[in-house]
Amino acid sequence: MQSATRLPDSALDEMTARKANPMNKLPPLPSKLAMVPFVSVDNMMRIVNTIGARKMMAEMAQYIEADFRKWEEFDKTPRVAAHSKEGVIELMPTSDGEMYGFKYVNGHPANMARGFQTVTAFGVLARVDNGYPIMLSEMTVLTALRTAATSALAARYLAPKGSRTMAMIGNGAQCEFQALAFQEIVGIDTVRLYDIDPKATQKAVRNLAESGLSVVSCSSSEEAVTGAQIVTTCTADKQYATILTDNMVGPGIHINAIGGDCPGKTELHKDILLRSNIFVEYPPQTRIEGEIQQLNPDHPVTELWQVITGATQGRISVDQITLFDSVGFATEDFSALRYVYDQLERTGHFVELDMIADPDDPRDLFGMLQRAKG
Amino acid sequence: MQSATRLPDSALDEMTARKANPMNKLPPLPSKLAMVPFVSVDNMMRIVNTIGARKMMAEMAQYIEADFRKWEEFDKTPRVAAHSKEGVIELMPTSDGEMYGFKYVNGHPANMARGFQTVTAFGVLARVDNGYPIMLSEMTVLTALRTAATSALAARYLAPKGSRTMAMIGNGAQCEFQALAFQEIVGIDTVRLYDIDPKATQKAVRNLAESGLSVVSCSSSEEAVTGAQIVTTCTADKQYATILTDNMVGPGIHINAIGGDCPGKTELHKDILLRSNIFVEYPPQTRIEGEIQQLNPDHPVTELWQVITGATQGRISVDQITLFDSVGFATEDFSALRYVYDQLERTGHFVELDMIADPDDPRDLFGMLQRAKG
Repeated sequence: MQSATRLPDSALDEMTARKANPMNKLPPLPSKLAMVPFVSVDNMMRIVNTIGARKMMAEMAQYIEADFRKWEEFDKTPRVAAHSKEGVIELMPTSDGEMYGFKYVNGHPANMARGFQTVTAFGVLARVDNGYPIMLSEMTVLTALRTAATSALAARYLAPKGSRTMAMIGNGAQCEFQALAFQEIVGIDTVRLYDIDPKATQKAVRNLAESGLSVVSCSSSEEAVTGAQIVTTCTADKQYATILTDNMVGPGIHINAIGGDCPGKTELHKDILLRSNIFVEYPPQTRIEGEIQQLNPDHPVTELWQVITGATQGRISVDQITLFDSVGFATEDFSALRYVYDQLERTGHFVELDMIADPDDPRDLFGMLQRAKG
Repeated sequence: MQSATRLPDSALDEMTARKANPMNKLPPLPSKLAMVPFVSVDNMMRIVNTIGARKMMAEMAQYIEADFRKWEEFDKTPRVAAHSKEGVIELMPTSDGEMYGFKYVNGHPANMARGFQTVTAFGVLARVDNGYPIMLSEMTVLTALRTAATSALAARYLAPKGSRTMAMIGNGAQCEFQALAFQEIVGIDTVRLYDIDPKATQKAVRNLAESGLSVVSCSSSEEAVTGAQIVTTCTADKQYATILTDNMVGPGIHINAIGGDCPGKTELHKDILLRSNIFVEYPPQTRIEGEIQQLNPDHPVTELWQVITGATQGRISVDQITLFDSVGFATEDFSALRYVYDQLERTGHFVELDMIADPDDPRDLFGMLQRAKG
């Protein structure tokens, strides 16, 4: 299968030849400096299928972990949101001083009924030293991978040792990614699935058929959590929901709460939060968007990066309930973009776009236009 | 000349055919919903050369003017800047409630010495109702056009009636665009050029040779401003410079100050500001970045949009000195993107990128990946 937006190699060769040939009578073509690698959805799928989703999430988790370790070096700007009655469009920039990245992401709950995606995303990685973009990438698929990689990374620090069974309540777009990331990174061998829509569960069962996981379809949340050491909640309704009630959560459980990720959208009963040790990405954002929006603003939480650096402890007892209240943070997108950038050469699944004007004489932008007339 | 990133028409046809054919055994290709038009630098140059730079700036000025008229409807977020020792990377988002746009732009003063552009830019236009990006465009060339269109638009409201001669101090990348925009929109017939580097002036003289303008090379700023009704300052040094001193500016002049556009970078002597009526785009931004960073924060200024709507007067006397202290604002980029978007069908100079995942079943992102294996 050939990528629809693939630049034929011959075009690149021609470009180089025309640049290099002083006798060239054709208009100048963009120099290498002006070209920005672009990873389309199609090419992102090739990258995933070349490397393998599980391996890719495990490798990406290493990038996410490395960036959490240098958390204090990051420029942690709050996301910039444009709200409307239909939804929100957000820009999520961050930088580690060497690279700069941002993600564009929308959230429009009514989209699905109109035949559009609820969430779409793309992102850009740039060099801080000269400000040049070095990669443009789709991020709808990539965000699914980085979210699962982050969840599994957190669970490796927080879940009970030897966890083998994960309950998954909500079997939508994120479900299979979570299952495979936990299989690869945490070592689970069984997933227990429940969704209010049996079709969603059937889809997940079908997609995980060859994963090597033991996959159990359950008819209720209560059934799903039975015997699970890890409970992942990942439902889509935008409301204050109670996916888990207090009596469903026994001691020694790790809860990976993914679905509560914007104001007015939560999944856990408040009493569970009060019994848990709560771990978050970036408190100022999680207090607005996460499960802890139900709690007092001074309720104690632990920042995940401090667990990863060893500055503070993760799980301290067998009976403890640990809760990763995850809303997604800009550094995780940055790590994911860094990872994909490092795969460009390895996989070759990208095209180059001339996004940046590169006149021979930077003061002669107008002359570049005139010469392009040919 | 064929665009390097041009998608062959046959690929699009093939895509449509493969989508439409239920017997198709090939992996699914992106649907129309997933495709985002992209205007490369190369295609932007074609658009400019198809429409003509002058006509394009005049038409774009109408979009800029229309958006200034509905200024109060805009979501005017301050730009989001990531500063480093080498420069700055900024995101400039805005929305009128129907469309959303943002520009990515860097500013790295040391770039030119290292063979890079000081400023590069690209932007995205999106629909507010579903959050989908509808166009990605280069904005290095486009910003040059919108800056000159904005200057000329402001001058139409502020410059003395019947202005025929413009002095241009600083003959860099913006110079020719300013000259042509003022010719087309304001009606000037003579430009008087000066730059500390005679090569820059020579370049501008050469590029304007067929413009129909009378072009005069001058050997000093004093000589350039002689007999001019409009003075445009557009120099590049990042410092508190004094391109114009007080004695050089007589009564009845309009000053179009472009170059003072970030903290620590100004062009005019403070005394000129104190004698002028000052017009700005967005005061909170101009007080930090514009010439008026030299003045008290409560020094009176007039917002350009109020002049355009007629809420307040522009030039009120023949002897008045009017100063447009321009730093560039997000709404102008938004107007420019809207304009280019409206030219896509007219010119056909774009390619489509699959930036947005569009699975048949939005909950089955993982299945889309698996099916792509083919």
